[in-house]
Amino acid sequence: MLPGAREAWIDATEKFIGNPSSPHRIGQRADRVLQEAREELATILGCDAGDIVWTSGATESANAVFHHWERTLPADAEVWLSAIEHPCVLAAAEARFPGRVVLLPVTPDGVVDVGRFTEVLRHKAPGAVAVMAANNETGVIQPWREIRELCSAARIPFFCDAVQWVGKLSSRGLAACDFVSGSAHKFGGPRGVGFLKCPSGVKLSPMISGGGQEDGRRAGTENVAGVLSMISALREREVTIAAGGAVERESWRREFESRLIAELPGSEIVGAKVPRLWNTVSALMPEADCQQRWVVKLDRFGFAVSTGSACSSGREKASHVLSAMGYAPAAAGRVLRFSSGWETKREDWLALLDGLKQVSEVVGRAASVAK
Amino acid sequence: MLPGAREAWIDATEKFIGNPSSPHRIGQRADRVLQEAREELATILGCDAGDIVWTSGATESANAVFHHWERTLPADAEVWLSAIEHPCVLAAAEARFPGRVVLLPVTPDGVVDVGRFTEVLRHKAPGAVAVMAANNETGVIQPWREIRELCSAARIPFFCDAVQWVGKLSSRGLAACDFVSGSAHKFGGPRGVGFLKCPSGVKLSPMISGGGQEDGRRAGTENVAGVLSMISALREREVTIAAGGAVERESWRREFESRLIAELPGSEIVGAKVPRLWNTVSALMPEADCQQRWVVKLDRFGFAVSTGSACSSGREKASHVLSAMGYAPAAAGRVLRFSSGWETKREDWLALLDGLKQVSEVVGRAASVAK
Repeated sequence: MLPGAREAWIDATEKFIGNPSSPHRIGQRADRVLQEAREELATILGCDAGDIVWTSGATESANAVFHHWERTLPADAEVWLSAIEHPCVLAAAEARFPGRVVLLPVTPDGVVDVGRFTEVLRHKAPGAVAVMAANNETGVIQPWREIRELCSAARIPFFCDAVQWVGKLSSRGLAACDFVSGSAHKFGGPRGVGFLKCPSGVKLSPMISGGGQEDGRRAGTENVAGVLSMISALREREVTIAAGGAVERESWRREFESRLIAELPGSEIVGAKVPRLWNTVSALMPEADCQQRWVVKLDRFGFAVSTGSACSSGREKASHVLSAMGYAPAAAGRVLRFSSGWETKREDWLALLDGLKQVSEVVGRAASVAK
Repeated sequence: MLPGAREAWIDATEKFIGNPSSPHRIGQRADRVLQEAREELATILGCDAGDIVWTSGATESANAVFHHWERTLPADAEVWLSAIEHPCVLAAAEARFPGRVVLLPVTPDGVVDVGRFTEVLRHKAPGAVAVMAANNETGVIQPWREIRELCSAARIPFFCDAVQWVGKLSSRGLAACDFVSGSAHKFGGPRGVGFLKCPSGVKLSPMISGGGQEDGRRAGTENVAGVLSMISALREREVTIAAGGAVERESWRREFESRLIAELPGSEIVGAKVPRLWNTVSALMPEADCQQRWVVKLDRFGFAVSTGSACSSGREKASHVLSAMGYAPAAAGRVLRFSSGWETKREDWLALLDGLKQVSEVVGRAASVAK
């Protein structure tokens, strides 16, 4: 969490203690700063302040979109999602459109196939479409602008889960999408707060009903401190991005990747050929006796990494993202995922490279012995 | 917000930065403290830790209950609610059971009529019942224990919105209800965090789907700092309650009320004859030229108070609670609502009394002139 965002939270819990929906002055004071935050986010995204709804995070935002579509789309409408959406988008859709969720294929590089999408759109129109801005596992940047334009031309509502994008690349222009979701803790803000950008002039069918907060679109006492903290974080990130902070960090990631491939034979970068976020690397490791040992060993070196599979009761299930890209379960089982933060330096990437080489010697040696 | 709760939040954002759902050590450390918090709340309420689901607040909790009932009750099932439920319970029910919400009447004192409830239950059974623990406008304590027992005997699921109760009176025993909701900011915790106690062994149909967090009952990255802060606040409140803090504060409220009636002719306490929370007073003020002026004048004296009506575009609509109690719109329009906090002292109540008397002279004089 950004120190400035933490300060903004503490400050707000002392200064803006009123309920923004109350008529007295301390309530109105809280309402005013909440409105200012709404205007600031709207300016960053490129929309009206009235289009912003504060939520408890992007998972709620995604569920709110599908709740709205469930209540407003025709009973037989399909929803089309990319096959590599975040689990919260997939699950929110499946829960509300059982049997009517169609998954859009991706290329072997992990990019939603715009050609295929254009093709199928000629024959059939879905009730709504959702494609993320950038993938959470691979970092691969998605053609959300093109998909949005195609949807707009066909008058199909379009939702862009921008959780991985917002605060890492400039958010300007995202508001062209009908719905956009974001989560504060993904860019240095606190947990438990996020937003949903809604289309202007569309009456949202609220998933969380109650008082008239958020113009009747999301009930519940407003989390003023959380929102102010989130916007403080985003403001700081946007300044860093505008100053070229993302470009510099992408070069560090690239250096790490090219050295990894060169110095760790058998390793391979997922989505190597396509544009990706500067903070995410998904890579196949050399084969080892037990892939899970990579995680455990790296953890001891101080690196918290994730895998490309969800291990439950001893059986490994390949990630839906890697499967959609055509990776066989065995290959997906060799994937490690590394995410850096804004505070991660070039040295940290090189230290990780060093850690990987050391771990490789141990798990690789064991693998050879096992054979 | 309690200083200790604020400290707990700050502390957690520094110490428990991992995602509790991640396999590495910093993730597991966060998961451990989240689980400890779950056990602590479960002990306070009197249930298993597995019955607790963290939410973004009580409005979400209430919506989650009706979402679950919408997906699991028969298509023609009615839901019965007290007529004085919080707007979030009423709206959550109306949104999911249109035309199937039945409101249970209350006595002129503002207590759910158990006799009537018992009577109607003989002829017809609802799919589910919701009655709050204490009313948010009047502070009147509701017969949730009796209603719960009747529901339990008839095998009808029962939801108790305990937002006003938790952290003001001992929460022990609340868990006997199938569902119980609470909100952190009502007892000195942060905004944007709450809980839902669910019945053991019932598979919840989640309103917010996604990752497997909260045992598949509520998706979204866990708000660890928010939860730890909430539990810190509740722990402190429960200690104060056990030490008799509520009893002392109730005596201050009583003194305020009896002096108000004696010293401000024409004033009247709502629900005067029945047990009420120590922190809430709903009172009819003497007639004035414009009731809204009470709020404005008191605000200038430093008292943030609410009214018994929601004024929109110049037309006053009496609160549904006062209407259900039989108050005519004119009388409801005379109601002011005062809420104290744990930090409110006897002197503060007396200062409010003094403020009311001063404001009364001004608005009363104006009223006489107007006549």
